[in-house]
Amino acid sequence: MSIRTVPSGQLNGHAVRPRLRIAVVGAGYWGPNLARNLKASPDWDLVAICDLDVERGLKLAETVGGVAVVESLDELLDTYNLDAVAVATPAHTHHGVVMTALRAGKHVLVEKPLADSRAKGLEMVEEAKARGLVLMADHTYCFTPAVLKIQELVASGALGDILYVDSVRINLGLVQPDVNVFWDLAPHDLSILDFVLPGGLHPTEIAAHGADPLGTGRDCVGHLTFGLPNDAMVHIHVNWLSPTKIRQMIIGGSKRTLVWDDLNPQQRISVYDRGVSLEHQPRSAADKRTSAISYRLGDTWSPALQEREPLGQVVAELAGSIRNHTMPRTSGESGLRVLSVLEAVTQSLSSDGQSTLVAGNEVNLQVAR
Amino acid sequence: MSIRTVPSGQLNGHAVRPRLRIAVVGAGYWGPNLARNLKASPDWDLVAICDLDVERGLKLAETVGGVAVVESLDELLDTYNLDAVAVATPAHTHHGVVMTALRAGKHVLVEKPLADSRAKGLEMVEEAKARGLVLMADHTYCFTPAVLKIQELVASGALGDILYVDSVRINLGLVQPDVNVFWDLAPHDLSILDFVLPGGLHPTEIAAHGADPLGTGRDCVGHLTFGLPNDAMVHIHVNWLSPTKIRQMIIGGSKRTLVWDDLNPQQRISVYDRGVSLEHQPRSAADKRTSAISYRLGDTWSPALQEREPLGQVVAELAGSIRNHTMPRTSGESGLRVLSVLEAVTQSLSSDGQSTLVAGNEVNLQVAR
Amino acid sequence: MSIRTVPSGQLNGHAVRPRLRIAVVGAGYWGPNLARNLKASPDWDLVAICDLDVERGLKLAETVGGVAVVESLDELLDTYNLDAVAVATPAHTHHGVVMTALRAGKHVLVEKPLADSRAKGLEMVEEAKARGLVLMADHTYCFTPAVLKIQELVASGALGDILYVDSVRINLGLVQPDVNVFWDLAPHDLSILDFVLPGGLHPTEIAAHGADPLGTGRDCVGHLTFGLPNDAMVHIHVNWLSPTKIRQMIIGGSKRTLVWDDLNPQQRISVYDRGVSLEHQPRSAADKRTSAISYRLGDTWSPALQEREPLGQVVAELAGSIRNHTMPRTSGESGLRVLSVLEAVTQSLSSDGQSTLVAGNEVNLQVAR
Amino acid sequence: MSIRTVPSGQLNGHAVRPRLRIAVVGAGYWGPNLARNLKASPDWDLVAICDLDVERGLKLAETVGGVAVVESLDELLDTYNLDAVAVATPAHTHHGVVMTALRAGKHVLVEKPLADSRAKGLEMVEEAKARGLVLMADHTYCFTPAVLKIQELVASGALGDILYVDSVRINLGLVQPDVNVFWDLAPHDLSILDFVLPGGLHPTEIAAHGADPLGTGRDCVGHLTFGLPNDAMVHIHVNWLSPTKIRQMIIGGSKRTLVWDDLNPQQRISVYDRGVSLEHQPRSAADKRTSAISYRLGDTWSPALQEREPLGQVVAELAGSIRNHTMPRTSGESGLRVLSVLEAVTQSLSSDGQSTLVAGNEVNLQVAR
Repeated sequence: MSIRTVPSGQLNGHAVRPRLRIAVVGAGYWGPNLARNLKASPDWDLVAICDLDVERGLKLAETVGGVAVVESLDELLDTYNLDAVAVATPAHTHHGVVMTALRAGKHVLVEKPLADSRAKGLEMVEEAKARGLVLMADHTYCFTPAVLKIQELVASGALGDILYVDSVRINLGLVQPDVNVFWDLAPHDLSILDFVLPGGLHPTEIAAHGADPLGTGRDCVGHLTFGLPNDAMVHIHVNWLSPTKIRQMIIGGSKRTLVWDDLNPQQRISVYDRGVSLEHQPRSAADKRTSAISYRLGDTWSPALQEREPLGQVVAELAGSIRNHTMPRTSGESGLRVLSVLEAVTQSLSSDGQSTLVAGNEVNLQVAR
Repeated sequence: MSIRTVPSGQLNGHAVRPRLRIAVVGAGYWGPNLARNLKASPDWDLVAICDLDVERGLKLAETVGGVAVVESLDELLDTYNLDAVAVATPAHTHHGVVMTALRAGKHVLVEKPLADSRAKGLEMVEEAKARGLVLMADHTYCFTPAVLKIQELVASGALGDILYVDSVRINLGLVQPDVNVFWDLAPHDLSILDFVLPGGLHPTEIAAHGADPLGTGRDCVGHLTFGLPNDAMVHIHVNWLSPTKIRQMIIGGSKRTLVWDDLNPQQRISVYDRGVSLEHQPRSAADKRTSAISYRLGDTWSPALQEREPLGQVVAELAGSIRNHTMPRTSGESGLRVLSVLEAVTQSLSSDGQSTLVAGNEVNLQVAR
Repeated sequence: MSIRTVPSGQLNGHAVRPRLRIAVVGAGYWGPNLARNLKASPDWDLVAICDLDVERGLKLAETVGGVAVVESLDELLDTYNLDAVAVATPAHTHHGVVMTALRAGKHVLVEKPLADSRAKGLEMVEEAKARGLVLMADHTYCFTPAVLKIQELVASGALGDILYVDSVRINLGLVQPDVNVFWDLAPHDLSILDFVLPGGLHPTEIAAHGADPLGTGRDCVGHLTFGLPNDAMVHIHVNWLSPTKIRQMIIGGSKRTLVWDDLNPQQRISVYDRGVSLEHQPRSAADKRTSAISYRLGDTWSPALQEREPLGQVVAELAGSIRNHTMPRTSGESGLRVLSVLEAVTQSLSSDGQSTLVAGNEVNLQVAR
Repeated sequence: MSIRTVPSGQLNGHAVRPRLRIAVVGAGYWGPNLARNLKASPDWDLVAICDLDVERGLKLAETVGGVAVVESLDELLDTYNLDAVAVATPAHTHHGVVMTALRAGKHVLVEKPLADSRAKGLEMVEEAKARGLVLMADHTYCFTPAVLKIQELVASGALGDILYVDSVRINLGLVQPDVNVFWDLAPHDLSILDFVLPGGLHPTEIAAHGADPLGTGRDCVGHLTFGLPNDAMVHIHVNWLSPTKIRQMIIGGSKRTLVWDDLNPQQRISVYDRGVSLEHQPRSAADKRTSAISYRLGDTWSPALQEREPLGQVVAELAGSIRNHTMPRTSGESGLRVLSVLEAVTQSLSSDGQSTLVAGNEVNLQVAR
């Protein structure tokens, strides 16, 4: 009879570099996903789970095998000689946990949204910068094969200039106790846009319209619009009350239009080679407008996507950024740009949907993306 | 050998009442559909086609068989002893044509939009009213089996209170020479809402956001939001630049939610018996909000719809209204309510999406719907 | 006031050649479609409608304007100096009507199926051949933009060798009084295959399985399988009892696979550049089979299709064949190949699904396609 | 600092009865799923993993935490005082492993197919019966919410008499080294039918048609047809070569028709209240057939399904059967009925698709289901 126990990490012999040491803070909804992916990564040694609720921490530790459980953040940072922490606690605690970790000299991966206010997010970004530490926002969607492909297509110029973006993210969602539907769902759309738009997400002003028809105390249905350069327009629809689930983003371009239907695994991305064109050539006054418009009716193309778990890419990006002293693709700055828009949303909602300026240019000017 | 010719109208012997006499004014895009349906109707005797372009009029007359063609509206009204005219000319001519017909004592069916300004529409409505004539807006969608069923379901209370409406009407559309995408497409959504919302369409203010990213001189992408009673919210997305075609309306209700996907002939309407509920009962202060929210996960139901050409119903409704001296379901007032919103849209667009009051309460107060 | 009547055919001045003269025989379900397309065609002068039910003939004549109606076929052929007749009578009458027309020296377009037995069809084909007349089967599907594109893609080698074909044509169909579901629906699939398969439809044997679970007296559910060269396989599923409508054909190729979903107007044809490959190279005995199999996961491509009414193409093809003395793409021989399979189906059904030889090689050998 | 380790099984305190002891044999594709569900179950104590490849066993053991790994089956059975074993080894080893386990007095859960021949399966069933042990086939699909609902609907009579079943299970599948596509995929369809058909799966004869167009040495495309009582018909299409994935079963009934689309998580099951009816009442000879046929066009209904992992139900059913001495719903007999059909398929394929008798009535007669 042969029973053996194998030390954690021994089975994967492919990582030539020593593994980095990390802990997961927060064992609730998202923490287990982080823990599982860190455990499976050749880059990381998952050392500990930290949660105020020790029972929950132990339960998570058991599923990943041989990991310590600790109740207090200070103990965690003092004891385990960590390189980094991955933070999956509630949004209003991000600032406190992350600042503590940064001050202890740890790199940080933090769940979206970066913080619950722009001011706090800015402090976190500046602290990381001052200390030369990596602060990465866990904008997981940006590491899905679909979004990576979208980013690549936009960057390659295949779509031409962007004319409009329409993003719909609606389903029967959990009405959150302390944030409205914009703060809960729109970070996905905004972080994706920050990732795929050339130059990132820098709207100068936005308008938001929301409704709370059930009287829950916070908006459950929301519409957000803002402009892009060249009179392009972005619209985002988020909704917790829809029994039909839609996750669709249309990126209309001057050359081609891309439709991402995340609920269609057989054809998530379609690129339509059709559209409306306007030729800017001299014409007689009479037919100036109509005759210059032409229509293309071309083929549709759907790129093959390798199915891969995006969170595995997130933790690899984190390790790469730390090792190579580079900024991760979903940096703290990116998280901050998302926060800036969310704060403007809150302001617009409180002024009957009025167009509202988006703070944040001071950071945008300093940071080359 | 036997060749026979049959006088027009003799084959259909089922109409017990004498047929009403009508002419179609405008033989362009929509006129042929009106002519064909009037020809096939047991209520109507299609007497003439009127078009400034006589060749076009003749071509249409040939397809419906044995109908006179006339160039001038005055000749038409003087000569043919008509009961009514059906107007399918460009929007900016509606006011002139309709006023002339009304003053000649004819009942009128007019294509959407009722007119190209609210003031003109109001004049038309008041003229018809003063003369006791039927002025009907050809809001064809309101006579489709799908919309009739939606109206019935909303009226029956099956959906409960309406929480939100989201309507998307996007495809690669013809960029119109003289109107923007709101005036071209939103009349469909607005007239449908006027038809299905209990009490009709009476928003006090709206906000509209549009974009003209191609520089065509008019908005090609548009978003319109407004409130309904009880903090419910309507959003309408119209777009001429989308290569993917979507015609979907979601009506979220407190009891059930209805999704109308007009491009799915096998299941146009789905009624979801699921959603979020908020129970208003006394609770402790701490858990007041979250614990009172509950989720229902019930079945989906899709009513059978008889496929029927809606324009056939339109011309039947017109005849019925004339004969019974009743207001048609898509009355001139209904068309006016649509115009009121469209004018507010134009105003909101010109003030950077600011919330804008909707004119028209003076009419709404007078007219019981 | 100006009323004018215009002689039929004068408005379309584009046809430089004199129009050919044709009559439609049969004013029932399909006749009106033929009449409408012949009327609209620059190639044809629609001269008369022939139907035993004169009322029905008159009704049809009225919708196309200024066409004679005649009760008897002999009168029709004697009187109107026709070039051709288009036959849309019930299948069991095709042989009689077509033979009479051919003997009168008329070219013939005949609705599918060509006849109600292979022997009759063969006689019709031989009569036309002996007289040098065009006998064209109205396999309308073969003139749809989708099938034309499929034919082009198969012929170009884009799919590689055909590995399998699976065609599903099911919906709540009218249970026909005198034919089973194979004879009613499978002619569509078979004529399409005859059109798109390189070399046409020449199965040596087939097997058919049917069921009549309602006891209607004829099979309402049917499955037909046969082989193609190189061990490829065709399967056709026809069903009158399915409340869900499916019209889908999958053509699996060694290079690419094509899926035609005729109920998805936004993406009727998808070409998948993925599949299984088998490399035929020498290997060690042990891993011979498994290791030689590889998988490709490439992009999907959907060609743009111009929407065009196929029957317009049918009548143009008929005119072209007559004028240029060429064989139409859906020739009488093609109709005969379809009949040969259908007769084998009947035989296989009566012998518990046994593999059954398909007659017809004698014709196939004579006729170069 | 607080690190604790918790003994396996202590956290779940809800099981009042002592847990049963089980081991998983085979740590390859399916074993990890079994291990995970047994670990999570309140009914089971997962004691050991057995695999000839110890490294693979250790890897699996690590993910479930604190489970022994053993190389030899005899050691496993001798040492761990097991109540049951769950067998997830290759099909050709099932007979050997299961017979050994049964002879050691263990209850057995075995992956599909039960064995690689009917004779072996029969021996396994009889051994279990003779020893009063539970032999359960892991027909996982039968424990999905969708199939449980289908079974319930059929049993309740909601569909009426079954008229036809059409099941399509096609996608780009792994060409298996030692079985053809029927043996790989059809067990799913057959076990589901055995579960949902009233009285189970007892076809007297079947016909199968297959193709190996790539020359892999085994059929990659397959069609299987057989009759049900009252001239109903079943057809199953399995295919490894299709780049488009379809998993759809249509069950046509005399009252309603059910469509199960397993790739549509938002509406897996649709029940159509429409169809064709035949009234069996005396009529005149002439119109006997056609006039008795009528069509219903009713609503569609889609039941809500609770998403639940079916394998959790499988292990609960196994525990329940052992404790209550009842036959599991997917018994060894059920697995045997599936094998009987698969053996007939092999025979039919080797005789050009001829109808082939299905062995197994001797078992069917003895075993009340």
